[in-house]
Amino acid sequence: MKSGGWVEAQNSRGTVGLVPEDYIEVKTILIISFVFDLTSLYRALDEIRKLCSVYSFDEEWDDDSDDGKSTGGYGGSQVEEGGTMQRAGGHSTMKLSLNKFPGFSKTPNPEVYLLTKHIAKGDERLPIYTGEVGPVWLYPQTQLDCVVADPKKGSKMYGLKSYIEYQVTPNTTNRPVNHRYKHFDWLYERLVEKFACALPIPCLPDKQVTGRFEEEFIKMRMERLQGWMSRMCRHPVISNSEVFQLFLNYRDEKEWKLGKRRAEKDEIVGVKIFSNIDPELPELDPAQVEQKYEMYSQFTRSMDNSVKELLAVGHLHWKRCTGPLQKEYRQIGKAFQNLSSVFNTSAYPRESTLTEALTATGKTYEEIAEIVAEQPKKDLHFLMETNLEYKGLLGCFPDTITVHKAAIDKVKEADHVVVMNKISQQDKLIMEKNLSTMSYALQAEMNHFHSNRIYDYNRLMQFYLEEQVKFYETIAEKLKKTLGQYTTM
Amino acid sequence: MKSGGWVEAQNSRGTVGLVPEDYIEVKTILIISFVFDLTSLYRALDEIRKLCSVYSFDEEWDDDSDDGKSTGGYGGSQVEEGGTMQRAGGHSTMKLSLNKFPGFSKTPNPEVYLLTKHIAKGDERLPIYTGEVGPVWLYPQTQLDCVVADPKKGSKMYGLKSYIEYQVTPNTTNRPVNHRYKHFDWLYERLVEKFACALPIPCLPDKQVTGRFEEEFIKMRMERLQGWMSRMCRHPVISNSEVFQLFLNYRDEKEWKLGKRRAEKDEIVGVKIFSNIDPELPELDPAQVEQKYEMYSQFTRSMDNSVKELLAVGHLHWKRCTGPLQKEYRQIGKAFQNLSSVFNTSAYPRESTLTEALTATGKTYEEIAEIVAEQPKKDLHFLMETNLEYKGLLGCFPDTITVHKAAIDKVKEADHVVVMNKISQQDKLIMEKNLSTMSYALQAEMNHFHSNRIYDYNRLMQFYLEEQVKFYETIAEKLKKTLGQYTTM
Repeated sequence: MKSGGWVEAQNSRGTVGLVPEDYIEVKTILIISFVFDLTSLYRALDEIRKLCSVYSFDEEWDDDSDDGKSTGGYGGSQVEEGGTMQRAGGHSTMKLSLNKFPGFSKTPNPEVYLLTKHIAKGDERLPIYTGEVGPVWLYPQTQLDCVVADPKKGSKMYGLKSYIEYQVTPNTTNRPVNHRYKHFDWLYERLVEKFACALPIPCLPDKQVTGRFEEEFIKMRMERLQGWMSRMCRHPVISNSEVFQLFLNYRDEKEWKLGKRRAEKDEIVGVKIFSNIDPELPELDPAQVEQKYEMYSQFTRSMDNSVKELLAVGHLHWKRCTGPLQKEYRQIGKAFQNLSSVFNTSAYPRESTLTEALTATGKTYEEIAEIVAEQPKKDLHFLMETNLEYKGLLGCFPDTITVHKAAIDKVKEADHVVVMNKISQQDKLIMEKNLSTMSYALQAEMNHFHSNRIYDYNRLMQFYLEEQVKFYETIAEKLKKTLGQYTTM
Repeated sequence: MKSGGWVEAQNSRGTVGLVPEDYIEVKTILIISFVFDLTSLYRALDEIRKLCSVYSFDEEWDDDSDDGKSTGGYGGSQVEEGGTMQRAGGHSTMKLSLNKFPGFSKTPNPEVYLLTKHIAKGDERLPIYTGEVGPVWLYPQTQLDCVVADPKKGSKMYGLKSYIEYQVTPNTTNRPVNHRYKHFDWLYERLVEKFACALPIPCLPDKQVTGRFEEEFIKMRMERLQGWMSRMCRHPVISNSEVFQLFLNYRDEKEWKLGKRRAEKDEIVGVKIFSNIDPELPELDPAQVEQKYEMYSQFTRSMDNSVKELLAVGHLHWKRCTGPLQKEYRQIGKAFQNLSSVFNTSAYPRESTLTEALTATGKTYEEIAEIVAEQPKKDLHFLMETNLEYKGLLGCFPDTITVHKAAIDKVKEADHVVVMNKISQQDKLIMEKNLSTMSYALQAEMNHFHSNRIYDYNRLMQFYLEEQVKFYETIAEKLKKTLGQYTTM
């Protein structure tokens, strides 16, 4: 990234040409590398990271220019397609990100952990207790939360590049920190690397969302970042992690940069996270473990389908309210008003009460048309957002559960491997103990998921129904008022 | 129509062949005649009538077998097409029926009346007074009304032919009389012949309506016959006429048959009806008359368009409620219930309150689906029926007004005709006097129309809005109830 020269670059339309090295964005380089193969890409990525840190360009790499392309609402492919929530850039699901773990090709190999005789250290120790509902994480006394607000446009490189910065204020310090979308993305990457084998890390809101108005797009993104951050804050393991605390509490640019580098160098990532987990509970039999996994797998798959069904019908209903229904109520309103206008031309002396009432009725139906069209934003929006969040979350479980199933397979093979003298009987016992730990981790995580799910859907349904009641009552009230204008003859 | 021989007949598919004279229905003969020309048709009709009365076959001719083909609702061509309400059989609008008046080709020629020095006789005299709103008919002290009810299946010819008989009970005698659809049709024909030049006679409900269930069809037809009869009862001229009184009050078969023949021989038909009209008001200037006609013509045309617009949007809304909206609310209901079922499989101990509430919500939305689908029958139905009635009524005005306009043209020509010595100056003055009478008749009729219109639409709108309010309130109530099942955590 030295200045002054020219490099061959390919733009987003695929055209290749020479560009001055000074103005090239690293994003472009990423695209060039992508043409070759993924291995080169990651190698290039590392190179770039190193270069960037040397040249202090680290704000530029993997930049998100916040240029706001959003689907606005639920009309986009997110909802329609059956797959998991997609993100722009290299990784389409959490799995692809797992590829970046050193030493793993597709699914992270749990063997690295299973044979470890690791004892969790003080700060990093993740205890699991027995709660009323079974194994649970250790929850903090006060729940962490934060407010994502006040998006501000910033610019750099003499105004050539502009971006949006959000203010994130945790309830612990009440001191705001500023973050761009790419910082959230960086945090997401760290959380996936460190925790995704044990905890589903939901994707960030889509990068490539497009909206007609930049303002609307920023509002939507902020709302979704808020949702994501709140969910992360609610998680006892994530919220307590060093990288998450750094993100919320850094005091200056220097602390942020140092913290970033430290987090990027974290060794306890991938399946190694299990070595921090310390269930203070009796060891589980591998057979029990397997049965539970089947149940979790079945549950998350079923819920995923159910959530998608709700999203699909919600999407349909949204379109109906803002489309044909609004149009129809407007037409009804117009028809009554037109009838009133015709009646007005009758020259019949006893006309006015009826024509005035008819006009009022027509106007009421025009108002109803607008109420109907605005209603989805008031109630369906929150229902859709929450379910989209859950769709993202549920999309992470298969990957997480796969790691656990791979661990079971390893333990099942253990007897055979002992016979072949590749591992000792002692090693096998360690593997079984560690499998039990992994199982407790998943149970604690499932219980965390269930407790949140019940809270979220309870709140969601109450909110939705309250708004629906208001909606129907408002219309009834308006119609009652217009009814009063007719005379009883 | 002597028995024993064979006649050449053509069936409805156009096939010609010999059939035994004994079994042929006169309907078939009508179709055969139609192939030649209309003049022959009417000649044939007269022949058949005479024959039928000789052979006492009069129950068979122009039979309506009540076999129930109905569009059921507003999905049929009635609403969609722009034309006037169509009836099966020979006459598509009132105009075609006017062709049957002796001496008229297309539009009844008002000349027959304009030159008449007729003085209305006691019983037949139709006075016009000045009311608060201008010229008005003489209204009776008690308004005539009748109830059409209790449809019963009857049969004749040893059960070979079946029909539906309705019980018609006037409020004056409270004594029910029985009538088949074809009797209503006969009455309609008489009213058109006698009054259509002066009063719009709305068509009977369509003959060719088809419904999936005979019962539904009979109910719909009865309701529409009721509507038609009520409108006729409300008309001071029609309700007081001999033929209408016969229809409601005949005491036995003999009285009915004698009355029928008498009515069929009535000479005061077509434009001659104006000779019965006796406005006790100052004579009008022909120029004033013309201006009023333009206004009436304009008003009825505009209202016709407005009514059609309302019918079209009502039809759309009906289809939406019983189609996609019902389906969508069912889907929403199903989606909530499915989510509840999935949640039930979680094995998480704190599930039941939420799953029960979710199931209740799902069932509520399924109920809402049915409420939405049933609602049009409760409110839109009456709105549609009333507007269909008005569409039929408004479709008659152009024919009526055309007769009046033709009369103006005749009076305008009068000076020229006087010069040519074809009529005397005295005749011209009679023509002007008679034109004034015609104008008063139309004014009285328009005022009758306006007064009924205001009453009908006032009642209609109140009824519609009351039902709409109930609809929205019912849904709000149901949602409120299900909302109460969620716990506030």
